[in-house]
Amino acid sequence: MKILILGGDGYLGWPSAMQLSAYGHEVVVVDNYLRRRMAQEQDVDPLFQVANLHERVRLWQAHSGKKIEVFIGDLTDWDFISDVFGKVQPDAVIHYAEQPSAPYSMIDRKAATLTIQNNIMVTANVIFAVREFSPDAHIVKIGTMGEYGTPNIDIEEGWIDVKHKGREQKFLYPRQAGSLYHTTKVMDTDMLWFYVRMWDLRVTDLMQGPVYGLVTDENENHPELYPFFSYDELFGTVLNRFVAQAVVGYPLTVYGKGGQTRGYLNIKDTLNCVRLSLENPADKGELRIFNQLTETFSVNELAERVQRVGNGMGLDVEIKSIENPRKELEDHYYNPVHSGLVELGLEPNFLTDEVLAQMIEIVVEHKDKIANHRIFRGTKWA
Amino acid sequence: MKILILGGDGYLGWPSAMQLSAYGHEVVVVDNYLRRRMAQEQDVDPLFQVANLHERVRLWQAHSGKKIEVFIGDLTDWDFISDVFGKVQPDAVIHYAEQPSAPYSMIDRKAATLTIQNNIMVTANVIFAVREFSPDAHIVKIGTMGEYGTPNIDIEEGWIDVKHKGREQKFLYPRQAGSLYHTTKVMDTDMLWFYVRMWDLRVTDLMQGPVYGLVTDENENHPELYPFFSYDELFGTVLNRFVAQAVVGYPLTVYGKGGQTRGYLNIKDTLNCVRLSLENPADKGELRIFNQLTETFSVNELAERVQRVGNGMGLDVEIKSIENPRKELEDHYYNPVHSGLVELGLEPNFLTDEVLAQMIEIVVEHKDKIANHRIFRGTKWA
Repeated sequence: MKILILGGDGYLGWPSAMQLSAYGHEVVVVDNYLRRRMAQEQDVDPLFQVANLHERVRLWQAHSGKKIEVFIGDLTDWDFISDVFGKVQPDAVIHYAEQPSAPYSMIDRKAATLTIQNNIMVTANVIFAVREFSPDAHIVKIGTMGEYGTPNIDIEEGWIDVKHKGREQKFLYPRQAGSLYHTTKVMDTDMLWFYVRMWDLRVTDLMQGPVYGLVTDENENHPELYPFFSYDELFGTVLNRFVAQAVVGYPLTVYGKGGQTRGYLNIKDTLNCVRLSLENPADKGELRIFNQLTETFSVNELAERVQRVGNGMGLDVEIKSIENPRKELEDHYYNPVHSGLVELGLEPNFLTDEVLAQMIEIVVEHKDKIANHRIFRGTKWA
Repeated sequence: MKILILGGDGYLGWPSAMQLSAYGHEVVVVDNYLRRRMAQEQDVDPLFQVANLHERVRLWQAHSGKKIEVFIGDLTDWDFISDVFGKVQPDAVIHYAEQPSAPYSMIDRKAATLTIQNNIMVTANVIFAVREFSPDAHIVKIGTMGEYGTPNIDIEEGWIDVKHKGREQKFLYPRQAGSLYHTTKVMDTDMLWFYVRMWDLRVTDLMQGPVYGLVTDENENHPELYPFFSYDELFGTVLNRFVAQAVVGYPLTVYGKGGQTRGYLNIKDTLNCVRLSLENPADKGELRIFNQLTETFSVNELAERVQRVGNGMGLDVEIKSIENPRKELEDHYYNPVHSGLVELGLEPNFLTDEVLAQMIEIVVEHKDKIANHRIFRGTKWA
């Protein structure tokens, strides 16, 4: 299958490209290095430098014997995206090409505007390009569990039957996102759902929880093929951040009460979920939604685990509750259904002590590159 | 109260400006004439030419002795909107400044892109400008009943309590819009709802049904103060179109079965709803939603009424069902709650035979300017 990966330079885009290439698919990656530029501008370089996409593709070919094609350009630009789709004519499109940081989207008006314009216009252009060049292509869109927020009822997989005054209607599960970034993903969903109904698009929306880790089957023992690993507040996911903080003796930053509960998954499972979705595509005219997580933890539970495993490895890990810069519930009901991907064949890689120890070991190797001032800046939600 | 009307040149913006000025408010109107340019480009001029905003403000002053201030510029441009908000420091903002046509948004990719970029970025800029310059200002946003679509359960006023597996949560009423234009209004709501929660904005969202008519208390017997009256498929609302078709003997274009039911209101009631909302503002941190309609009709019912009243006035009105260019249900449940604005004091102007006859009389005066080729073009939804 010919697969176009939009945002192929990212934390998840690049590992997906390698896995799908390893599985025999013809892979094309597209990126404009927006994520790299934002990190530079905000002075939050990742843990180690990562080669550019052309270079990584060469490294991958040396390692695997397989080719990946690269296009560098801005997907909000119709001339560029139509050129790519016209040349590639993909069977499937994976849409990772978004400004992916909730705190970044809350910094100021300019960052908010960039987030809105990039995320909405890339999604719109993907819809128009699929319609024009590959109307049967399967769009796999990376959504986020953050679209749902923290409702007081169970979170179903994308849809809910509402009974009201003796009548019944199936709706998209109502969303109430916790950041502007997450809100742009809700808006993406609005647009995709509309055009699925109008143009019979074929879409899978993967409502993903925070991802952790950096080792996959394709890059194990090949650090030159690792993705970005961010440990800063803007681009680092919470467990990755806690691991880096543990390594340098920076007290783990628990926001407020620490009861915030979310659904997490190993980066290996992200890749498997995306691949399983591609191998079992949605129907034409279907917006299929899966909740992409394997287990839920509160922030306190994550911090305690990192502390326990870290201390067992000779680190001296402290946990410190700080004033919550976000506006969110710190103690709430959270019960998301997540059986759809398991039914497709997902075999979860849970967060064991061994997995955590492996992450800590890798980060320890880069300990001297961690700059403490990058860890926390307290971007405020209000 | 100092009121900033964004989109003050439009079908509803200008009549609102006059009414609020007549009621003693200090009114400032802003527009970039986008609606006029789109109509020119698409060759769908309104029934009669309308003076530009500066000229209309002079006409209004000559008539009423009251001043309205004008700014001409593009609200997607932060430099412009921040200049306006900085100078005006409004107590309330009425946000009409959107590409308002469902069929226009479905013409092609360029029209869709314009709709998305204009509507989303104006709304975002309004949010940022209020936050920066007038954080206590009341935003009255013109939404649309079209955001809800045609669900099989009653349409509540913006919110719904969902009971699910023994638990309960209040949600924004789930939306499934019927055009890209309507979808951008859903996206606007997503953004407003997010920032209401984060920044304690004060917002009223008026979910308005199709409006008809052109005579208001302020322009009665002053045709030079009439708003645009469009009779074409792109910018004409259905009843206005049917009246023009009846006048020139163009069979009333009923799409498909004609069972499509919507909630309608007289332009006078739109103005009253907006004014009542301003006089009774939402609280800080409240997204207050009203369904703004006074009665529901199916398309067949509207066509039959125009036929009956028109024939009674000596016209020869035919009704013709044509293939539906839209993708929509032609026969469906429709029961919207709309008591909130009545509780605020709205006294509806219903669609009586007299109201319809007055509309027909005015359009008859301009009969020779109606170009039949402008009436229908069949912009397809799919």
